[in-house]
Amino acid sequence: MAGTAPPYEELIRRVRTFMLLHSCGSVLGWDQQTYMPPKGTAHRAEQLALLAGLAHAQFTSAELGDCLAAAEASPIANEADPAVNLREIRRLYDRATRVPGALVEEIARTTAQAQDVWIAARKASDFAQFRPWLDKIIRLKREEAAAIGGGPVYDVLLDEYEPGATAASLATLFNALAPALRDLVGRIAASGRQPDATLLQRSYPVAAQEAFGRSVAAAFGFDFEGGRLDPTTHPFCSGIGPGDTRLTTRYNPQDFGDAFFSIVHEAGHGLYDQGLEATHYGTPLGAPVSLGIHESQSRMWENFVARSRPFWEHWLPQAAQAFPEALTGVDLEAFYFAVNDVRPSFIRVDADEATYNLHVLLRFELEQALVTGDLAVADLPGAWAEGMRRNLGIVPPSDAQGCLQDIHWSGGSFGYFPTYTLGNVYAAQLFATAQRELDDLPASFRRGEYRPLQHWLRDKIYRQGQRYRAADLVARITGTPPSPAFLLEHLCLKLQPLYGL
Amino acid sequence: MAGTAPPYEELIRRVRTFMLLHSCGSVLGWDQQTYMPPKGTAHRAEQLALLAGLAHAQFTSAELGDCLAAAEASPIANEADPAVNLREIRRLYDRATRVPGALVEEIARTTAQAQDVWIAARKASDFAQFRPWLDKIIRLKREEAAAIGGGPVYDVLLDEYEPGATAASLATLFNALAPALRDLVGRIAASGRQPDATLLQRSYPVAAQEAFGRSVAAAFGFDFEGGRLDPTTHPFCSGIGPGDTRLTTRYNPQDFGDAFFSIVHEAGHGLYDQGLEATHYGTPLGAPVSLGIHESQSRMWENFVARSRPFWEHWLPQAAQAFPEALTGVDLEAFYFAVNDVRPSFIRVDADEATYNLHVLLRFELEQALVTGDLAVADLPGAWAEGMRRNLGIVPPSDAQGCLQDIHWSGGSFGYFPTYTLGNVYAAQLFATAQRELDDLPASFRRGEYRPLQHWLRDKIYRQGQRYRAADLVARITGTPPSPAFLLEHLCLKLQPLYGL
Repeated sequence: MAGTAPPYEELIRRVRTFMLLHSCGSVLGWDQQTYMPPKGTAHRAEQLALLAGLAHAQFTSAELGDCLAAAEASPIANEADPAVNLREIRRLYDRATRVPGALVEEIARTTAQAQDVWIAARKASDFAQFRPWLDKIIRLKREEAAAIGGGPVYDVLLDEYEPGATAASLATLFNALAPALRDLVGRIAASGRQPDATLLQRSYPVAAQEAFGRSVAAAFGFDFEGGRLDPTTHPFCSGIGPGDTRLTTRYNPQDFGDAFFSIVHEAGHGLYDQGLEATHYGTPLGAPVSLGIHESQSRMWENFVARSRPFWEHWLPQAAQAFPEALTGVDLEAFYFAVNDVRPSFIRVDADEATYNLHVLLRFELEQALVTGDLAVADLPGAWAEGMRRNLGIVPPSDAQGCLQDIHWSGGSFGYFPTYTLGNVYAAQLFATAQRELDDLPASFRRGEYRPLQHWLRDKIYRQGQRYRAADLVARITGTPPSPAFLLEHLCLKLQPLYGL
Repeated sequence: MAGTAPPYEELIRRVRTFMLLHSCGSVLGWDQQTYMPPKGTAHRAEQLALLAGLAHAQFTSAELGDCLAAAEASPIANEADPAVNLREIRRLYDRATRVPGALVEEIARTTAQAQDVWIAARKASDFAQFRPWLDKIIRLKREEAAAIGGGPVYDVLLDEYEPGATAASLATLFNALAPALRDLVGRIAASGRQPDATLLQRSYPVAAQEAFGRSVAAAFGFDFEGGRLDPTTHPFCSGIGPGDTRLTTRYNPQDFGDAFFSIVHEAGHGLYDQGLEATHYGTPLGAPVSLGIHESQSRMWENFVARSRPFWEHWLPQAAQAFPEALTGVDLEAFYFAVNDVRPSFIRVDADEATYNLHVLLRFELEQALVTGDLAVADLPGAWAEGMRRNLGIVPPSDAQGCLQDIHWSGGSFGYFPTYTLGNVYAAQLFATAQRELDDLPASFRRGEYRPLQHWLRDKIYRQGQRYRAADLVARITGTPPSPAFLLEHLCLKLQPLYGL
């Protein structure tokens, strides 16, 4: 940092301290989801609220704002690295300071209560219980977006998760993607060739699942000296800080895919977190670009690597040793087909690679309509059913399997869902480029070698931090602006031969 | 809190916030000792330093000091509960604010480095490596005590762990205890009757050890819905907050006693933490009295309950089922004798109930002499050897098994060791009273019932918080000021018949 002016140095010191405090909350959050005893809930909520409050106060302080303004006005603002940090800190600072404290607190309090209501409503499969809370959350999120300003409500909300993306750019993307996906899914459903998905529902002892998943994650390059894998209710990856990245999954002794594809998915996130530049930790240059880019990393390892034929050419014999009761004598083609089973279903998180983005499209359309007021909250269940019928040809039998299935809206997360599809789109485009640039990637997968791909991702993505916004990063790496064509090509190339289309 | 004046309420709010922040550090500390990946060390050190710094700044703020002074000057200071809180908050505030920030930082930095040096020196069994660091730490601790003031150096340091205790009161205690212990240990060594301690060094599979220890802790009343038991290198108990108390232990598949007596010891600490008044959490009324009283709880369950004959009358048959290879056909008397094996040894943490306090005495004498300057640091190994010879009749063959064995001094903890013996003394006196006041305690142990003892401890100790200082609390409960007579009586009554003395 030679040659930097004092205000910039002081700014970075303050931002790093904020991130360090934030990372203490990450440890407490991980612990809450893994090992915290049940009766610790109330105390943990107080601890997390305190840390969040302290971190927010530090980040939104006038002193930090003054350092930021002074740094922006100094010559250092023209240097490459500082310019990136200043751009992203300014974005976060404005978002954080423009919303009145009273509104921040009301949103926090409302969503905390709403999540409990949502849990009860989903259990009772009764949208009416949740409806007034969703109404209130949407009203508050509209207020929040108005306070932040800078664009239409939905774009402002989306910007929290995917800086630079807009409703219009997403609409273009989904308009290109959806008809082709509906067509593909329809042709697959009509095919006479179908996989034997019960192969994955045999006896898969949990200890062997864990050991197998751990082997694969380690082979991908996930460093268990700087990370962990633990059981939890909902799989996630927590990047606590340099040298500490934690994956979680859940095990079902009668289901191979649930834990295994969660582990490789979370390992994809974990590789990104472990690959960030530790020297830039706590600043935008040492942080992931966006949720969309983060998801592209998890989906690449999950779908483009671990659901590929070359991957199983290497691992199926080892899986057969790990799970002799389930897999002895199982044929590679049958297994490969089973892990690529495509089938319309009600629950997004269980959806296959082809139908998944239609679930996301539905949520994108509905949440846009909700925040703009085009759709009344009372009409959500009907709109959901109609959207499912149109996109996937099935209608959920209950609210629990319909509009109450996801936690996001109860937590105030509007604009989050599209990042899942952006992740799939980016993953396909990035993977196509990796295949072009790296020497015979399928052959390395057949040998169980992933270092070429991991190092490519490290140089192209991990080490870049937030140097470029998501769409720019993808365009720079691949030579083309983000396009759904790569994802569609990947799905067609993989699924058409399997289903004999 | 009806009727309290605003400054007192504001004080309590601030102290609670400080404790809540402190408890975030407890979670991170527990995680560091249990599940943190190895490469997370550096980041964790930064997180803990940040939390400690923030907590210290909150507690030592001028605003908190003003609230404290105003509350002390208000009528509420005459009310029973507030008076306790004000007394203890004043004590902590003065201790925390009288030491200059630069000295606090130098002690923190020096002891952090010294602990690494100590680890290396112990590994090499080379006191010379550690000597300059110990010199510096003692110099800094003298400065710290001078800054705090209020008495002789050693008393000021001791006060951090055992408020109200003094070097003089401890000397009186040890002077009464030591000759009798040396005599008892000597007679035991000379006895022709000795236990078969190898009973405890048979095959004890770790999973069964964990399950058995968990059963016993639960039977004592430890609530696993509000607690945990995990493996770690050094056993400890962490009271994170209401509903969250965590025990740890370490397992050796060839040693029953190591894990088992650690678990019941830590469960004793855990019962105390779980029994504190949650409504007073974060204030002295909801906090343990002292390290000595805390240790009395762990030692009571470890030595007075779990090394008693009635205890094993109930549990040995269950242990024989849990460890059939080791314990099938093993006689109650032989097993009971084995868990009460008395034998001079070099390492304090492995010492039995009778020799243990002679180890503590040695440390008490040496650390007093070190901080007053009566003993030069260079002369420590020689003084250690001489003290071991005098007290236990054995001389350690190396520094690692001598003056380098304990972590305490490298961390700057002078005055901590005596609290171990205070714990044993208090435990004996409290347990004698419980036996007098409760209906046939041995009979309830024979039935595996501990509720009478647990409820008695809850009412007499847990729920009192810091209402009374340690010696006063013991005197109020037992009717007698703390005295070593009860511990000596307990040891003689148990060990003389076993060894045929």
